[in-house]
Amino acid sequence: MQRIPKSTLKRLALYHRCFLDLKQAGIVKIQSRELSIQMGIESATIRKDFSYLGELGRQGYGYKIDFVLDAFEQVLNIQEKQKCILIGAGNLGRALMNFFTSERFTSELSHAPTALVAAFDNNPSISGLTINHIPILHTDQMIDYIKENQVKYVILAVPSHASQEIVDAITNLGIEGILNLTSTIINAGSMVVHEVDLAIELETLVFTAIQEQVNRKQTTIKDILDL
Amino acid sequence: MQRIPKSTLKRLALYHRCFLDLKQAGIVKIQSRELSIQMGIESATIRKDFSYLGELGRQGYGYKIDFVLDAFEQVLNIQEKQKCILIGAGNLGRALMNFFTSERFTSELSHAPTALVAAFDNNPSISGLTINHIPILHTDQMIDYIKENQVKYVILAVPSHASQEIVDAITNLGIEGILNLTSTIINAGSMVVHEVDLAIELETLVFTAIQEQVNRKQTTIKDILDL
Repeated sequence: MQRIPKSTLKRLALYHRCFLDLKQAGIVKIQSRELSIQMGIESATIRKDFSYLGELGRQGYGYKIDFVLDAFEQVLNIQEKQKCILIGAGNLGRALMNFFTSERFTSELSHAPTALVAAFDNNPSISGLTINHIPILHTDQMIDYIKENQVKYVILAVPSHASQEIVDAITNLGIEGILNLTSTIINAGSMVVHEVDLAIELETLVFTAIQEQVNRKQTTIKDILDL
Repeated sequence: MQRIPKSTLKRLALYHRCFLDLKQAGIVKIQSRELSIQMGIESATIRKDFSYLGELGRQGYGYKIDFVLDAFEQVLNIQEKQKCILIGAGNLGRALMNFFTSERFTSELSHAPTALVAAFDNNPSISGLTINHIPILHTDQMIDYIKENQVKYVILAVPSHASQEIVDAITNLGIEGILNLTSTIINAGSMVVHEVDLAIELETLVFTAIQEQVNRKQTTIKDILDL
């Protein structure tokens, strides 16, 4: 079968967000050219990406917002939000708790496919607290909690040295995926891992800015390298 | 001239990190097939990506680690680290300060193209503090600081409602790029913006996990949609 490339999966998440914003703005249909401009993605790429979801629009007619959103939501199975926990409630973890309990993420209109239900930390001065109605529990309770609540997703925000130990502990409990914010490579068996490494993101910004300067000067990166 | 696609720029940052790790492991050359397996990126994609940097290797011969790193570093102009500031030193900001002052980011071997030099916050109970030798200054001092120190990059971690106001304030001061962690769309004129939105990253993880389940069941997302 056809495997959806990673870059497409990321864009699918971006399209989903964009169509939700369009719906909220009261828009019912968008031309593919308009969508392309709004998202900064070429029409051909959008057509190719959407082809993975089936026939979502016709050439020259554009995309019906509701129809596209329905397709996304059948794939995401939004009817039942999947439970997600946060492991590690330090500075980063607490920032994530604020973010994932904000209206942007929890409102009906956000159509987020997951809901944050609990956080875990092994520091007894943090566990026991509650942030925006989400309890921070001690790591000792983590395995039982995952089993009893059929948790499907984990946001991992522990110190890097602790990451593999945590991953080993939550293996074979029914977890589908891990959002890894620890900047370490983890070995997670059959669980899907999606990494966000801010050092890489900052370097991507620098590459993009350099490319921008090069474009302004009408030279090429090859010219800089003198190759 | 040829414009480097965004997805390639992101991969260039990943290759750079990978080659630095290989060098640290004492490896001097890598076959393109090996590199492909290690990074989970197809050889053809790697060849295409590298073509933007010039002739970095020959078919069947592989890539010399030092040669590739030199090419990256000429592009990144690593000799002089660009100054980067953080705006917003709340939970997220302080987590970022710890991250960007960690050895992984600041060591000689990290070859990071930027260095975090200061943070800014408008909360007087935070400004005046120092985290890992990086001062947190009051936002009032921000514009003078940027001008005097020729700051080139900004990591934006303020509350969403404040993001555009900050961006407006730092326009035309020589800033090249903004790493936007505010989950809001900002209008930054000629400054390059790279967004990291954790809601999108979490949804990308969910898409990837669903795709993985679909693959295991040997059906397609089109089948789920019954199209």
